[in-house]
Amino acid sequence: MTAHPERTQIQLANVLAAMGSPLRLRIVRVLADGGEHTCGSIVDGVAKSNLTHHYRVLREAGIIWQRPSGRETLQSLRRDDLDARFPGLLDALIDAACLEAAAEV
Amino acid sequence: MTAHPERTQIQLANVLAAMGSPLRLRIVRVLADGGEHTCGSIVDGVAKSNLTHHYRVLREAGIIWQRPSGRETLQSLRRDDLDARFPGLLDALIDAACLEAAAEV
Repeated sequence: MTAHPERTQIQLANVLAAMGSPLRLRIVRVLADGGEHTCGSIVDGVAKSNLTHHYRVLREAGIIWQRPSGRETLQSLRRDDLDARFPGLLDALIDAACLEAAAEV
Repeated sequence: MTAHPERTQIQLANVLAAMGSPLRLRIVRVLADGGEHTCGSIVDGVAKSNLTHHYRVLREAGIIWQRPSGRETLQSLRRDDLDARFPGLLDALIDAACLEAAAEV
């Protein structure tokens, strides 16, 4: 599995660019529960190769951890790192994403 | 001048994608003072055509107003619209951008 940036290497512009996609915002909303999720359990109806790309974007920006577990890959949010680096930002982003998702229903 | 999205058309993913650039974050930090700024007064050392592109990205995402004034174009932050649409988000983004900029000095 593949590199994750160190906490100190996490750059705001990269975080925002990575979040700047409806599908990746949806992934982050699911991971906001604090748990580890398998690839397929996070979003339905998206091709696996496509999902792999989106997880990679989130991982390279420092937003998620990915770790292998048997034949699966588990994803989780890097809340500690993001909160340390940009206090309050992640919650504001998740709140905004939830608000928008609720308005779309 | 050119279209601005309505408040209700402002999409979170577009806002974050537009903010996902160091130069555009710099522009937003300058505009966070609430004033109207001419193109050239916001950032130094960037070609005008390049700046025009970045202002357009911010405008199309609903982050800034642009209005002509004589031979200049004035830019300002759409704070009311962003605060109404995503309460707390703009301040969190500006705080994070200022924190990162301060750490880089």
